[in-house]
Order: sequence, then C-alpha cells, then structure tokens
Amino acid sequence: MAAPSRNTCGLMERSVRERVPPLLTDLYQFTMAYAYWRAGRHQEPAVFELFFRDNPFGGGFSLFAGLHDCLLFLRSFRFSDEDVEFLRSVLPPATDPAFFQFLRGLDCSGVTVRSVPEGTVVFARVPLMEVAGPLAVVQLLETSLLCLVNYASLVCSNAARFRLAAGPRRKLLEMGLRRAQGPDGGLTASRYTHIGGFDLTSNVQAGFLFGIPVAGTMAHSYVTSFTSLEEVWPQTLVAVNGDPEPVDVISLTKSWLSRVCELLGAEPEKIREGELAAFLSYAVAYPQNFLPVIDSYSVGCSGLLNFCAVALALCELGHRPVGVRLDSGDLCKQSVDVRRVFRLCREHFSIPAFDSLIIVGTNNISEQSLAELNKKENEISVVGVGTHLVTCTKQPSLGCVYKLVEVRGRPRMKISEDPEKSTVPGRKAVYRLVDADGHPFLDLLCLTVEPPPEAGLPLSCYPQGCDNSAVSVTPAQVTCLRQEVFTKGQITQSLCSAAETRAKVQSSLQALHPRHKRLQEPDSYTVALSEKLHNLITEIQRGSSHGSNFLLAN
Amino acid sequence: MAAPSRNTCGLMERSVRERVPPLLTDLYQFTMAYAYWRAGRHQEPAVFELFFRDNPFGGGFSLFAGLHDCLLFLRSFRFSDEDVEFLRSVLPPATDPAFFQFLRGLDCSGVTVRSVPEGTVVFARVPLMEVAGPLAVVQLLETSLLCLVNYASLVCSNAARFRLAAGPRRKLLEMGLRRAQGPDGGLTASRYTHIGGFDLTSNVQAGFLFGIPVAGTMAHSYVTSFTSLEEVWPQTLVAVNGDPEPVDVISLTKSWLSRVCELLGAEPEKIREGELAAFLSYAVAYPQNFLPVIDSYSVGCSGLLNFCAVALALCELGHRPVGVRLDSGDLCKQSVDVRRVFRLCREHFSIPAFDSLIIVGTNNISEQSLAELNKKENEISVVGVGTHLVTCTKQPSLGCVYKLVEVRGRPRMKISEDPEKSTVPGRKAVYRLVDADGHPFLDLLCLTVEPPPEAGLPLSCYPQGCDNSAVSVTPAQVTCLRQEVFTKGQITQSLCSAAETRAKVQSSLQALHPRHKRLQEPDSYTVALSEKLHNLITEIQRGSSHGSNFLLAN
Repeated sequence: MAAPSRNTCGLMERSVRERVPPLLTDLYQFTMAYAYWRAGRHQEPAVFELFFRDNPFGGGFSLFAGLHDCLLFLRSFRFSDEDVEFLRSVLPPATDPAFFQFLRGLDCSGVTVRSVPEGTVVFARVPLMEVAGPLAVVQLLETSLLCLVNYASLVCSNAARFRLAAGPRRKLLEMGLRRAQGPDGGLTASRYTHIGGFDLTSNVQAGFLFGIPVAGTMAHSYVTSFTSLEEVWPQTLVAVNGDPEPVDVISLTKSWLSRVCELLGAEPEKIREGELAAFLSYAVAYPQNFLPVIDSYSVGCSGLLNFCAVALALCELGHRPVGVRLDSGDLCKQSVDVRRVFRLCREHFSIPAFDSLIIVGTNNISEQSLAELNKKENEISVVGVGTHLVTCTKQPSLGCVYKLVEVRGRPRMKISEDPEKSTVPGRKAVYRLVDADGHPFLDLLCLTVEPPPEAGLPLSCYPQGCDNSAVSVTPAQVTCLRQEVFTKGQITQSLCSAAETRAKVQSSLQALHPRHKRLQEPDSYTVALSEKLHNLITEIQRGSSHGSNFLLAN
Repeated sequence: MAAPSRNTCGLMERSVRERVPPLLTDLYQFTMAYAYWRAGRHQEPAVFELFFRDNPFGGGFSLFAGLHDCLLFLRSFRFSDEDVEFLRSVLPPATDPAFFQFLRGLDCSGVTVRSVPEGTVVFARVPLMEVAGPLAVVQLLETSLLCLVNYASLVCSNAARFRLAAGPRRKLLEMGLRRAQGPDGGLTASRYTHIGGFDLTSNVQAGFLFGIPVAGTMAHSYVTSFTSLEEVWPQTLVAVNGDPEPVDVISLTKSWLSRVCELLGAEPEKIREGELAAFLSYAVAYPQNFLPVIDSYSVGCSGLLNFCAVALALCELGHRPVGVRLDSGDLCKQSVDVRRVFRLCREHFSIPAFDSLIIVGTNNISEQSLAELNKKENEISVVGVGTHLVTCTKQPSLGCVYKLVEVRGRPRMKISEDPEKSTVPGRKAVYRLVDADGHPFLDLLCLTVEPPPEAGLPLSCYPQGCDNSAVSVTPAQVTCLRQEVFTKGQITQSLCSAAETRAKVQSSLQALHPRHKRLQEPDSYTVALSEKLHNLITEIQRGSSHGSNFLLAN
C-alpha cells in the first residue's frame, strides 16, 4: 500500500526545531563558549571537521546521512529567552551577564558548511563535513550535528548491508518502531533505512512525513481474538464482475476447506476454527488485500489450510488474494512447503492466481540470517526486519567525532599518546579518485591551497594507516567530494527528498567495487594524504617534540 | 552544576503529543482495526498485557519505565482530520468511509490501564501493564506503548547495572547524546539513565526539561585551539577576600609551573604552552569551576603539570580548583599517578585544597570496565559514560510484547509451536511475595477472580519455565504489584517526577536480594502461576488438541 509523496519541508523544519532545540547539546559547549567569549576569542575564524574512525559493522564502507536535518538545524539555530534564562541558572553565578546577551543574538549567519552529499558512500577518516565560522558558534554546534549524523548514517549503512545481503529483487520491509530508541528513534530508523535501500515501512507516521510506502496486515492477536465462525460478519461477499447477489462466504469457504483437506490429506479436526474466522473476517473486509499471518497455531495443520480455503473462495468470487506471512520457525523450509501447497492447489483446482501469491517472512531477521536465506532454497519474496535493523545490533553506534583543524588560518592538530586519536590538521579539499572502470579507488585529502589532482596524471600520496611510505597513483577521473551546502545562514543546495537520496545511495553503491562492498572481510579502501598535508603533519609533530620552552622565554 | 527542578508537566504532555502522534504506529493496527470494525467487533471488551520474555543483559531483573509517557500518550490519543485523510490515502480504496468517521471520534475514554509503578524492579514474563478497553482501540495502542516502554525500561535497567557496578559512592555522569538514536533517543537516554541511578548528565535540554543536574567543562578542541599564552585574556585575576588589585596570573602561573617542574623533576621543554594557555583562560573565566581535560597531549609530561600550576595559582588567590578529567589510556593507573602528584603538591606547598581535588574518568566506559575499576586501585571519583550506556551495547533492545489475553470475558491464548512464544491467557492479578527479611522471592500470577494470597499462609503454585510440578511457598508479606493508573480517559495516579521515580528505583533495588541483583550469573527469580491459572492453560491446551471439528458441524 503506497503512500503519496508529500511536500513536507516546512513541517520537517518545524519538526527539527522542536526535536533539536539549541539546548540539546552537552553543557561543556557552553562553558567553552563562555571561556572563548571571555578571552575575546569567540569571533576567531575556526574550522571543525566531522568524521568517523572505523567503517561500521566490520565492513568496507559507510553511507553518509543526516545532512538534510543538519541544514535545517543550522538554519533555525537560535536561543530563546527561556533557553538563555535556563543557561543562566546552570552556568556558574560569576558568569558575565553580557555573555547571555551574546548568546541571545547568536545564529549561524557566520557559518559555512562544506559537505559530502547525503547518501554518498564514504570511508573512515575522510572528513565528511567541514564547519567553518566563529569559534564559539562552531563549537556550540558540535553535539547536535554529531547526534543528527551518527545514527542516521549508521542505520542507513545497516540498511544498505541488509539490502546487499538480500540481493536486489527481494522486497525489504522495515518494522522496527517498537524496538527503537523511543518514538523519534523509530521515525529516524524508518526514514534512513528507506534511504539505505528498504522498500517499505510499517511505520505510518514515516509514510505521512516522508512518503515512504507503508505495509502491514495483521498480528497474531487479531487471529487469536476470534474463536468461532459466528464472529464473521458480514457473512457474505459479492463477486467481482458477476452475479450481484451476495454469496455466503462461510459455506463457500468451508466447502473449499474440505476440498483442500482432501487434496492434502490433512486432518480436519486439527484445524482452528478461530483462525479460519479471523482470516475470513479479514478477507471480507479486504477482499483484494488478503495476506494473513499463518503461524498463530500451526502452519501445516491449520494456518496454511485455512489460508488456501479463504483464498480459493476469494478467487472463485473474482478477487485476488495477496499471500501469507510466516513469523516463526524455519522460514526457508516452511516457505518451500507453502509454495508446494500453492502449486498443488493451482494445478488441482486450476486457479492461476495461486502462482503469484507472495510469501512474507518475519522472524528476528539479522543481516546474517538474511544472507543465509540466499544460500538455502526458499520462496520468500518479502522480508520484514525489525530489531536487528533499527538497533544495529552488530554495532549500535557509529562514533562520529568533530575535531578542530584550524583557528585563525593556522592548522590545529591533536597529538594524542593514542595515535588513533590524533587528528589531521588544516583546512582540506577531499577528492575521490576513480579508476578506468568507474570504480572509486582512493580518497585524497589535500590542503585547500593545493591544486586538485588531474585525471590521467600520476600523483604521489601517503595512504593512511600504512607506514610512512608514498605511493604513486593515476586516476582516470577525479571528483571533488564535498560541496558548499550552507553559508551566511542559508542552505545553498536544494534539499533532496528521501526518494532522491535513496537513488543517490543506490548509484553510489553501484559504483563501488565489489571488493569494497563485500559484507565479510572486504578489501580496505585507501584514504591518503597529499604530500603537502603529510609534510605539514611531520612538521607539526617535529615542532611539538621540540617544545616551545616558554618557561625560560620570560 | 545543578539545574533547578521545573514544573514541566504541560510541556511534557505537549511534547509527548508531538513525539508520539497516533500515526506513529504500525499500519497493521489500522488494517486490523478496520477488520474488527467491519465485523462489528470493535467495541468488544478486550484485554492486552505488556511484558518481556527475558531479563535484559543476561541479568536477573529489569526496571520498568516509560509509564509516565504512556499515560500522557493515552490522555491525548486522538486523530486529527489530517491523520484520518492520510489513513484514507493509505488503506485500500474499498475501505468503508464510515470507518474514518469512527477513527475521527476515537479516544481512550473506554480504556483502563493497570500497571506496575514506574521505577519498579520487574522480571521476565510478568505482565507489567494490562490495557483493557474496546478491542479496536486497545489494538491501536500496541506499537506506541511498546515504543515508549521498551527503550525507557532497557536504558533505565542498563543505568541501574552501571550503578551497581560502580558502587554507591562514585558519581556517574551520562554523556551519550551524540551516540544515541537521534535527538529524542538522546533525551530519552538522559532521562531514564538518571532515573536508573546516574547522578549527572551532559545534556542541557535534559536539565531544562527534567531538572537533572548537568555537568561538563571542556573538550580537547578547546585545549588545541590555543597555541600561546598571548591568547590568554584577561591576564589578571582578583584574589578572593584579599587585595583588590588584580594579579598577573600568567607570571604567577609560570612561577608555579617552574616550582612544580622542579618538585617533580619534569622537563620544562616538554610542556605545551597552548595547553597552559587553554587552562589559564578557562581558570580566568571560571576560577571556582576549574576542571580541565588533561590528556590532550601527555598527562605526565604536560597536562598534569599545567593543571597543578594553574590550580596552585588559583589557590594562592583564594579560589578553589575542582579537579581534572582523564579521557584516554589506563584510567586507573593514571588516576593513581595523578593523585600521587596532588599529594606531593599538597605537602610540599602546604595547599590543603589539593586534598579534595576530584578525578573524572571518561574513556569508552562499559559495564565491564566499570566493574573492573572497582577491582583495581584507582582514584576516580566521577565516571562519565556515553556509548555503552545509551546504545545498550550488550543488548540493544528489550523485546517487550503486547499480547491479547481476553476478549468478551473469555480468556485468549496463543498456542505457538514455539513454546517460548505461547502466552498465558486470562485477566490476571499479580502479587509479589516477600520473605521474612523483606526480600521479594516470587511473583505470582493469578486470575482476577481468585482471592489474593495471604501473608503467613502457605500456597501452592507452578513456577514458570520449570517442569509442570507445583511448589508450596509461604510469604511473609504480599503486595499487589499493579495499580489502576488510567480509566475513563483520565490518569488516576499522580504522575511522578523523575526524582520520585529515581528514588523508587533505589528502594526497589535495595529490597531485591543480592543473589538476584548480581550482575553476572544471578539466581533466577521465580515467576509462578496460581493453580487455577495453571489449570486454565491445561484446559485450553487440551481443548485445542481436540480441535473443534467445525467442518463436520455444519
């Protein structure tokens, strides 16, 4: 059941403002902002970079998502009087009152953001967003931007992995709302799993807000709420394009059920009357959308037989049943059994519609169980995924960080005792180098002052995470990975719809070489530093080891 | 830094209405509601139960949370015209238009909820909430209630485990906003980890909305943004209760730094001037709240020395430095080293304030690493936890379910081929049996028609998950675990503040016997069925195996 796409940009901006008020951040952003303000440094031009340090799920790539909401957040970033009053109550009493006036007047009119487009395949240690502006302001944005990018990118990447595991043809349904981190977690999951490659969601609000097609029919509670055929109402149905006289569907279904039992050699006394009543009631309500869950009791002894009986009755009246859902046990084996029964019915009763019945599988599906589906014989055409998708069981956090790389035009670097936590200094340009087959093979970080690499010309660079040796590469194509998306308080790129971003994900994944796309033990993608950037780091580290000896200078 | 508590009930109800609109649910709730309506069954009295099947994190208990939001959700549950129009566009075209009028008029005035109080220690397979009302309405509530309870209870339980691992004295700071499932996930995490036993949060909005004390001082970016002492401004500070003449803090600090280096035999040329400038700037801005992160470069060679110098200067001027934060490496070992240096300074320079400096540790803390802290020598008095706390890495979903147990006064049961997925039928009362020492030892599920167990009298019951044998127990006390919290559209218990629920958590945990509270391999707590309930199940299962043979009946 497809939802119409809606123009909901205004709605979403309001929603971002409500979901991400400027106080939704860590306190230390304010204490630092005050210290900068007090030292008169708050207006100094500063540059932060947002990136993650490891590709998620032990994979070879990630997807970048959340930019859309970041931009709406930046555009509406402003403190209300109430916000400022609260901050006044929280910061130490000695805080200069003029600082709160400064906060009251703050906005992002001085901020410029360069970013990878939303939905792009990205790699660890590549700066995805560059946020430049007055030091105090860009510092204040940290937590909110991380919060908006981290989970969106993670769950989008997770969805893409499920999509790769499922293969291109199987339909994927997201149904994780009840297992997400609260209401907004659930909504965010629906939105970004669709972008990552899921076809459908069970979440109606996600359909409403983002135009994602919604799907769903019935739960076990519906089935178990019925006990007898007396509860079926109305008990008649009118045939399509035929006799306008209503037909007694209970008698019709019971006669089909007898024939099905006979055909399959089933024991009629094991069939649950309540289940048949539930199916029949649903079929009467939705004669064109009949897709019951058939394992509330026993698939083989009851659910499948009841389904066939109701579906055959519907077919006789010219309606078209849709299929069944399996929600427990060995989905592959059961789906094969179910399909065999469908074929038997189709042949024995000459009902061609039984050829196109679909089988939906939903039972705690993980990326691994989905990958296994592809190895075993099965007849499942739609897979519903909840918990493992939305909670990202395999790795529940992406770990994006936001690091200072330049202040007042001077490169800044964190030289940690833990080399993993050191940062790459300086304001950068990021280029994606593509080979002759159209596959990206290297992301190059340069200083912005450097000329861009040229297609067809060899260049020397320093792959990260290797020893300190240079390699020479010759790209067939070069693309600049980031674009300016926000400046002077305005969003400078048109915001993409979920559908556009979803298409971007697919094309970006398509271009990626299978060796990087492999879900297990992928080849690692090279991220390299230009010679100039490499030299800058060496220089800073050398300077650092010398120290400044300021103690003696005075 | 403590935030004042606020009366934010109206604000929170509005927020719940916005966060949990009635469309934020699975589509099948609507398709089922329509099928009920079409069959004239939508007003039939029905009862659902909400419970989880396994205690989270391999532990012996869980905490129940999310009720407050559930009640606000129920009170405001109503479809707008826009909601209904969207549903019309999503449901099959043949859906009777009168159904949408029915939806438009729906509310929870016919719903009654009995629930365990928020913040109570609870166990797997105990029905936590009973939701009774018109079949179609109580079905429609399923996903939203699950979504509100699942993560709240999970993260609250996770926080309680961290609290147990940390011991009662250590302060715990939640700082997971940037790693949560989006903004609302982060806010929910802050709220329920506080309830579960955390003392502080970094999340300012959580302080604003829930009155949770907020904390935080500086990030590494603040430290690395400074390069030289010239950036310190103002360069003077006035002494407390002394000479009103401003003192040159740069000279003062440098002289202290020389003395510290001499005392510790440190090499002055390894000290980072930028770090000292950052500390000094912060100290000038917050002379009473000085708590820098000291591992941006090297704790032993630079950060600790710089801290001591600034702190000694502050002390000389009558201010009181607070402490340091360690954010990488072996926190235990470093904290011991840091404390030793504090003691040396205290003795050598006769500065008593150095005795009360605190050490904050924050470095990817998990429940396990926190438990290990207690086994090793360390001097950490405040621990900050982010990712592992809010994403509940060990088990990112609680798996609450919502199952139908009665329709029209008749018990309903799902008899699955997977016995784990079978349900316990009938409307129940739940009693907690307490031993003579005040420890709960058994939760008893009875049918509501049964008389409650009496203190001091032996009773026979059937523990779940065991073989089918009865045991006899004699409670010293009996409490009825659930109370009516919602009826006729109204909340019938006063809503608890976060602080009240937090206290409830602590007293509920206090009463729990250590053998159930153990984080590793706890004894499993007994949940048992009354004899009558046990017999009912046997009866239904027997009836089910006979089948109704309705095929022959007509």
